[in-house]
Amino acid sequence: MEEACCCHKTKKRDPEEYKDLIHRLNRIEGQIRGIKGMIERDAYCTDILTQVAAVSAALNSFNKVLLENHMKTCVVRDIKEGKEETVDELMKILQKLMK
Amino acid sequence: MEEACCCHKTKKRDPEEYKDLIHRLNRIEGQIRGIKGMIERDAYCTDILTQVAAVSAALNSFNKVLLENHMKTCVVRDIKEGKEETVDELMKILQKLMK
Amino acid sequence: MEEACCCHKTKKRDPEEYKDLIHRLNRIEGQIRGIKGMIERDAYCTDILTQVAAVSAALNSFNKVLLENHMKTCVVRDIKEGKEETVDELMKILQKLMK
Amino acid sequence: MEEACCCHKTKKRDPEEYKDLIHRLNRIEGQIRGIKGMIERDAYCTDILTQVAAVSAALNSFNKVLLENHMKTCVVRDIKEGKEETVDELMKILQKLMK
Repeated sequence: MEEACCCHKTKKRDPEEYKDLIHRLNRIEGQIRGIKGMIERDAYCTDILTQVAAVSAALNSFNKVLLENHMKTCVVRDIKEGKEETVDELMKILQKLMK
Repeated sequence: MEEACCCHKTKKRDPEEYKDLIHRLNRIEGQIRGIKGMIERDAYCTDILTQVAAVSAALNSFNKVLLENHMKTCVVRDIKEGKEETVDELMKILQKLMK
Repeated sequence: MEEACCCHKTKKRDPEEYKDLIHRLNRIEGQIRGIKGMIERDAYCTDILTQVAAVSAALNSFNKVLLENHMKTCVVRDIKEGKEETVDELMKILQKLMK
Repeated sequence: MEEACCCHKTKKRDPEEYKDLIHRLNRIEGQIRGIKGMIERDAYCTDILTQVAAVSAALNSFNKVLLENHMKTCVVRDIKEGKEETVDELMKILQKLMK
């Protein structure tokens, strides 16, 4: 359920989506700390780059999960309520994600 | 200066490179925690996706700094020492980074 | 207006969108022929790679135009008609575009 | 073998590399013409986007082949001849390819 607070829209997510997103971010945070540890242990460049590629992949999959949820809930609801500006909003973020 | 420990090569970085890489990772870690906070505060999907795009950009620039240092030190030294397998190693990681 | 032929859906585009898409593809086709010419004239590698990056950017912008049109016409219409599988279809293609 | 013509470096490629690169570009050119045909036949948006994703993948693999050849010939030779600016040149193009 989406509410418009003073300046930003918010979105109440169901517990399952909430838990999944937090779990993914916790893992990514751990991976970043792991890479810091590699630098601290003088790890070799290509080994570090391999780990960073894994973090980028994890972020990309986080994006896809969030985007799919957004489209199946907010975008569908907005379109049914005639708020078609939701498509412009979606396109704006896709411009960034489709580098 | 690069040493081959039992199974993994290591690389002693100069203090400036070391500090820059750690600083970048600390900032990325902070950004990830910030996104977790957004989820906890029921932030709207596209606002979260915008922040994740910023983290991906920060990771990409971390990669470029590390890659440039790697090429200007390890790859140049290896080629001068006739260890041309360094190019295969570099190409392997570029395959991942050039999705 | 979208019709379902025997196995594939088709889409009648308005003349303006049609002309723009064809114009973009003609230009991309010309760029590819230009790169072939560079190879034939023994052009240097990085000069060629620079041109290929320009083609990738042109393809990416072609995708964004097509995607925006698709969302503002087919996806909005389908959702209003209760055909929410259009979102799964959109997500499937976004998975490919969001490498 | 690389010569510096008046303003641009050129590179004489071995017949095998030359044939492979031209073959790849011919195929990509054909794919672009195929996509034009899809637009002319009012093909559905997501079917077109799927084909464009295939062209992007083909361009990406063309880049990797060209880059690997470049590194194993021009970059190795330049470094052995003490022309280390070749690394800056390589990094400049990687910045574009590592969007």
